[in-house]
Amino acid sequence: MRTPRITRSIGLLALTVSTAAIGVTAAEEGMWLPDQPPVDQLREVYGFEPSPEWLERCRKSAIRVSEGGSASFVSPDGLVMTNHHVVRGLLGKLSTADNDLVKNGFIARTRTEELPLPGVELDVLWEIQDITDQVNADVTDDMSPAEANNARRKARTRIEQESEERTGLVSESVTLYKGGAYQLYRYKRFTDVRMVFAPEEAAAAFGGDVDNFEYPRFCLDVSFIRVYEDGRPYHPEQYLRWSPSGAQADEPVFVWGHPGTTRRLYTVDHLRFLRDTQYPASLASIWRAESKYAEWASRSDENDRLVSSNLTGVRNYRKFVTGVQAGLQDPAIFDRKVAAEAHLRAAVAANPEWNAKWGDAWEQIAQAQDTYTEFYERRAALRMWSDLFTHARQIVRLADESTKPNTERLREYRDTNIPSIELELYSDAPIHDDLEAMKFAEYLGSMAERLGSDDELVVALLDGKSPRVRADEIVRNTTIKTPERRRQLVEGGIDAVSSANDPLLEFMRVLDTEDRRLRTRYEDEVEGVERDAYAKIAAAQFAVLGDGLYPDATFTLRMSVGRIIGYQEPGGFVEPFTNLAGLYRRRDLRHATPPFDLPQSWLDAESTLDLSTPFNFVSTNDIIGGNSGSPVVNRDAEVVGLIFDGNIHFLIADVIYDSTMGRSVSVDSRAIIEALRKVYDADTLADELTGR
Amino acid sequence: MRTPRITRSIGLLALTVSTAAIGVTAAEEGMWLPDQPPVDQLREVYGFEPSPEWLERCRKSAIRVSEGGSASFVSPDGLVMTNHHVVRGLLGKLSTADNDLVKNGFIARTRTEELPLPGVELDVLWEIQDITDQVNADVTDDMSPAEANNARRKARTRIEQESEERTGLVSESVTLYKGGAYQLYRYKRFTDVRMVFAPEEAAAAFGGDVDNFEYPRFCLDVSFIRVYEDGRPYHPEQYLRWSPSGAQADEPVFVWGHPGTTRRLYTVDHLRFLRDTQYPASLASIWRAESKYAEWASRSDENDRLVSSNLTGVRNYRKFVTGVQAGLQDPAIFDRKVAAEAHLRAAVAANPEWNAKWGDAWEQIAQAQDTYTEFYERRAALRMWSDLFTHARQIVRLADESTKPNTERLREYRDTNIPSIELELYSDAPIHDDLEAMKFAEYLGSMAERLGSDDELVVALLDGKSPRVRADEIVRNTTIKTPERRRQLVEGGIDAVSSANDPLLEFMRVLDTEDRRLRTRYEDEVEGVERDAYAKIAAAQFAVLGDGLYPDATFTLRMSVGRIIGYQEPGGFVEPFTNLAGLYRRRDLRHATPPFDLPQSWLDAESTLDLSTPFNFVSTNDIIGGNSGSPVVNRDAEVVGLIFDGNIHFLIADVIYDSTMGRSVSVDSRAIIEALRKVYDADTLADELTGR
Repeated sequence: MRTPRITRSIGLLALTVSTAAIGVTAAEEGMWLPDQPPVDQLREVYGFEPSPEWLERCRKSAIRVSEGGSASFVSPDGLVMTNHHVVRGLLGKLSTADNDLVKNGFIARTRTEELPLPGVELDVLWEIQDITDQVNADVTDDMSPAEANNARRKARTRIEQESEERTGLVSESVTLYKGGAYQLYRYKRFTDVRMVFAPEEAAAAFGGDVDNFEYPRFCLDVSFIRVYEDGRPYHPEQYLRWSPSGAQADEPVFVWGHPGTTRRLYTVDHLRFLRDTQYPASLASIWRAESKYAEWASRSDENDRLVSSNLTGVRNYRKFVTGVQAGLQDPAIFDRKVAAEAHLRAAVAANPEWNAKWGDAWEQIAQAQDTYTEFYERRAALRMWSDLFTHARQIVRLADESTKPNTERLREYRDTNIPSIELELYSDAPIHDDLEAMKFAEYLGSMAERLGSDDELVVALLDGKSPRVRADEIVRNTTIKTPERRRQLVEGGIDAVSSANDPLLEFMRVLDTEDRRLRTRYEDEVEGVERDAYAKIAAAQFAVLGDGLYPDATFTLRMSVGRIIGYQEPGGFVEPFTNLAGLYRRRDLRHATPPFDLPQSWLDAESTLDLSTPFNFVSTNDIIGGNSGSPVVNRDAEVVGLIFDGNIHFLIADVIYDSTMGRSVSVDSRAIIEALRKVYDADTLADELTGR
Repeated sequence: MRTPRITRSIGLLALTVSTAAIGVTAAEEGMWLPDQPPVDQLREVYGFEPSPEWLERCRKSAIRVSEGGSASFVSPDGLVMTNHHVVRGLLGKLSTADNDLVKNGFIARTRTEELPLPGVELDVLWEIQDITDQVNADVTDDMSPAEANNARRKARTRIEQESEERTGLVSESVTLYKGGAYQLYRYKRFTDVRMVFAPEEAAAAFGGDVDNFEYPRFCLDVSFIRVYEDGRPYHPEQYLRWSPSGAQADEPVFVWGHPGTTRRLYTVDHLRFLRDTQYPASLASIWRAESKYAEWASRSDENDRLVSSNLTGVRNYRKFVTGVQAGLQDPAIFDRKVAAEAHLRAAVAANPEWNAKWGDAWEQIAQAQDTYTEFYERRAALRMWSDLFTHARQIVRLADESTKPNTERLREYRDTNIPSIELELYSDAPIHDDLEAMKFAEYLGSMAERLGSDDELVVALLDGKSPRVRADEIVRNTTIKTPERRRQLVEGGIDAVSSANDPLLEFMRVLDTEDRRLRTRYEDEVEGVERDAYAKIAAAQFAVLGDGLYPDATFTLRMSVGRIIGYQEPGGFVEPFTNLAGLYRRRDLRHATPPFDLPQSWLDAESTLDLSTPFNFVSTNDIIGGNSGSPVVNRDAEVVGLIFDGNIHFLIADVIYDSTMGRSVSVDSRAIIEALRKVYDADTLADELTGR
C-alpha cells in the first residue's frame, strides 16, 4: 500500500457526509505529514505557497520532547521554547524542600547559571523515508494476522537498526493509517539540555485545574531551555525568528508540532469499545488517583510539593478523557461517525472487487474489540505510573530481553531504543519513599479491587499482607533507589537481577510474567487483527474518498493550518484574544485565592505593564495532546504564539475534528516579551529572542 | 427464634477465636439493645450496676434524627444536642447567597429568633416489643425463601399499622440478626424543630476533610436545636444533665445513640461480595462524584456554596468505605473472619441435628451473592442522590403504590410511613437548577458508562441526546420544583401523574419500571435467601457460642460502653485528650490556610480562653455511622461528651470490632461550655445546659 500524496483539502470520513456540521471551514482540519503539506489547500484558501525554505525552516526548528510535548529552536544559540507544563515534571525533579522551582520559577541570569535537566531528550526530525514495502516484505498471504504482525515487527526493528548503524541518527519506524503505511523517521537527538527560564506556576497555570481546557485564558505557559553540545550552546541549522508585530485576528497561522495520538480512523465498533470499556475503566482509575493524591497532598506542605506534578497530570488527563467521552456520548457527534462509516461500507459493498478485498474489515475490528473486552480490565489493572515501578520493570525486562536477538525482543528493547531507556533509568532524580509507598499501596489496593482479592496474581503479589503493609515493605527495602545500583544490576545482566534478593524486583518478576502474557495476547489477537483490518479500511478510503487524507496522529511531526478566530458560545461570542488587563480582572473576580492568586513578581509589575498586550489567543488549528509547546508561526515562519491547550469543545478532536466551538489555545508572542522584560527583568533573554 | 438475653460479655464470632487480637479489653465490644444492657459485664468490669432510673433517663433522652444521626435532650425546655455535621444539610437549606449559615454559623439570642428547620424528624424511643413469632406466623415450611420473605413483609406492615392505630406512636418493625429476630419499636415523633446554635463550619469541622477520621482532633462539632410542641418549647419526660466536672482518662463512659448499619454477622462469602463487588462499585461512584463536585465547586463562589454539603458528604463516605475496604483487604483482619467462620461451621458440622437444620446456610449466602453479582452493577447504576430526583421518584411511586392495599405495597410506602415521605416531599427547601442539572448530567453520563451507551434503558432515558443536553432539558422544564405542585400531583393520584406531561416524571416512569424489576429480583433471590440463611446462622451462633450476642446495628437505639484511653501508633503514643491550645498550634502549623483557618470569633477569643480546657477525646466505645451526635454520659447519666467521629483505625468496625488502635472521637463537654461562654457570648445557652 502506498502512502497517499496529499493534493486536495479533503479531510477524514465525516467531511464527506456533513460539512455543514464542521463549522468555520473544513479546510482547517488536518494534521499534515511534514513531507506532504496541503499545498493546494494553502494556495486556494489562503493564497499562500510555502517555499521549500519555509518548509525546511519550520521542520528543522521543530523539536520533539521526550516528556511528551513539542518545542522549537528560537535562537541561533540553541535556545528552545516550550510550555511550562511540558517541563513541569523536570522542574519538580530539580526542586528541593528549600527551593520549589515549580512554585518559585527559575531564571538563569547568565549561561553558567543554566541548570542541567536530567533524563530529557530533544529530537529534531532530519529525514523521512517510506518503508511500507520493506516492512511488508516478509508478509505472505497465508499468514494469520498475528504472524503477519510479528513479521512486520521484526522487519521494523531490523530496518531501524540498519539505519542507525548507517546514519548515526535515531531511527524510528512509524505506523501510519493504523497499518496502511510505514515511514522511517530519522532524528538528531540532544540530551544535554539546560533550564533557562520558567515562570512561577501561578503565572504559567493561572486558573489551574479550574481553567484548564477553558477559554478565555490568561496563562504564561512558557519556558525556555537550551541545547548544549560538547559543553557549549548548540547552533542549530534552523531556528524560528520572533515576529516583530505578532498575529492579528483572522490571520492564518501554522502549528508545527507533535500531536500524540488521535483515533479518527477508528471504526464505530472500535469507538464503542473506547466509550463503553476503555474510557470508563480509565476514568475510574483517574478519579481514584485524583482523590487519593489530593487527600495525600492535603496532609502536609511537603506531600503537596511531592505529588503536585502527578496531581496536575491526573487532572489534566481526567479533563481530557471526560471531554472525549462527552463527545462519544453525544449522539450528535457519534451519529456522524456512524453515518460516515455506513457511507464508506455501502460504497465498498457496491463494488464486488472492493468488497472481496476489504469488505470484512469492519467485522474484523468488531471481533478484535470483543476479544480485547475479555481481558482489557485485567491488563489495565496491572499498569502503574511511578518512577520506582518503571525503573524496576526496566531492570527486569532489560535483563530478560538482552538475552535475545534484537529482532526477537519486545519492540521498545530494540538496540536503537536502549539509550533512551538507560537515560531515564540512570537519571539521578530523587526517589521519595513516602510518595512511592503511597502510590504502591494505592496500586495494590486498586488491583485487588479490580481483579478481586482472591485472584491468584493478587494473592502472589500481596504475599499475605495488606496493600499498605506490602507497599511499605517493598518501597523501604528495595535497593534500586540509586542510579548506581540500577546500572550495576543492568550491567550484571539476568544473573545479577535474579540473585538480587530485592523485594521490588521479585515483585516485578511475578507481575511481569502476567503482563507479558496479556501483552502477547493483545498483540496477537487484537493489534495484529487491527493492523490487518485498518490497512484494508485505509485502502477503501483512498479508493472511495480520493487520496486527500492525513493519517492519525503518531507523536511525529505534523503541520496544521488554522485561523485566529473567536466562536459563539450559548452565553455569547468569545473574542479570540485576551490581554494582560484581563488577567488582573480575573484575579480580582476570584478574590485572588488559589489557583487565581498571582506571584509577587506580577503584583509588583502591574503598574509598569502595557495591559493592552495580547496575552492568549484561540485558533482553529487541528491539534491534540503532544502539541503542547508547539510554535505557532505566520506566513513568514515567524513565531507569533505558543500552543498550550485546547478549549473544552476541542477535546473530541481525539476522534473527530469539529471547529464549531473547538479551538486550540496559545500564548501570544507579545505577552512573552512583555513579561520577560517587565515582570522578570530578563532583557537578555528577550533580546536573544527578538534578535536585538 | 427468640431474642437472646444478654448475660455475659461475649462478643461476636471473632472473639471466640482470638481475643488477643482485640486489644484493650474484649468487654468493650458491643452495641447493646436498650432493653438488654450487658449488666453482668458492667458489674464485673466496671463495678457499675445501672439502676432502672439510669437506664430510663438515658433511653428517653436519646433521640434519632431523620438526617441520619443521633441526638439527646439536654434541658428541661426541649433543648437538643447533636453534631454540627448532622444538621449541616439543614443549615445549607436555610442559607441564602447573602447569608451562608454553614459558613457563618447561627446563634438565636432569644427563643423568638430560633429558626424553624424544614423537613426534619426527631424520634424518641418509647416502647420495644418482641414480634418475632408474629412476623413468622404465616411462614410455612413449604414456602420458598422469596415467599417467606413476602409473608414476613406483609405481617410486618400489618403489625406496624395496627400499632400506630392503637397507640398513636410511630411504629417500626426492626429485623435483628439479619432475620434471627424481629422487634417493634414505638417512637414519639417531633417535627417542629428549630435551630438554636451552630458554630461556623471552620470551627465545627476544623481540619475539614484532611483531619476527618483522624486523631488528634480539634473540632467543635456541636449544634443545639429545640423541640417545640403546639408552638411552645417541649418539656421532655427525661433529659440529660451536664457533668459539672467532665470525664477523666480511663473513666468508663456510655454512648447512647443510633448506630446505622454494621455487617458483623456477614459470612466470609458475603464479605467477599462487599470487598470484590459492592465496595469497588461504590468507590468508583464516590470518586467520580468527588471529582465532579469539586470541579464544579471550583468554578464559582455560588457553586461552591451550593455543592459544599454534597461534597463533604461524599468525602466523608469515601473515607469511610476506603477504611472498611482497607480492613477487608488486610489478611490479618479478613483471616480472623475466615477462622471464626470455620470454627462455627465445624461445630455445626459435628452435630448431626445442627447440621441438618443449619448446615446449608453458608452455601445459601454464597449463592445469593453470586446471584446479586449478576445484576448488582446494573442496580447500582440506577441510583442517584438529588432532591429533585428523589421528589420525582416519590411522586411516581406514591401514585402507583397508593392504588394498592397497604400490605401489598413496597415497604416504605406503608401507611405508617407516608407522613415521613410527605414531610420531605413537601419541604420548601429550594431546588437549584444549576446544581440539579450538573448532578443529572453526571448521573446520566455515569449510567451510560456503567451500562453502555447502547443499553436499551440508557437509550430510552437519553432520548437521543447527550447526557448534558438531556439533563438540562429535564431540569429546566420539570414542573415539580415547588412543594405546591408536588402536593397537587400526589393528591391527584395516578391520573394526575400520568397526564402531567412533565419530562422528569416521564423519565422517572421509564427508570422506575427497571428499578422495580431489579428490586423484586433482589428481594426474591438475594434478600429472601439471606434472611432465611442468617436466621439459621444466628441460631447456630446461639447454640455454639452461648447467648451473649448483640445484633448488627439497625439505626435503632443502642448502648455501648468504653473507656477514655489513648493508643499506640507506630509513631508514638496518642494521648486521649486534646485541648484548646492544640487547636491554635495546629492552625499555626498549617499556616492557617483552609481547612485550618479559624473564624474571626475564635481569633478574637484566643486570649480570653482557658487554653488548657479539654477539647476532644477518644474512647473505646463501639460505634458506627449514625452514632454521630450521640451523647457520651458517665455513671451518673451526665453529659461528658458528644460523639462526632471515629479514627481511621475504627472504620473496620463495620465488619469487626478492633480496639487495638480503633477509637471513637468526641467533643468534650467542657469545651462546649467554654466556647459558648467565651467565643460565642452565649451565656444564656450555657446556663440552660449547666442548669444555672
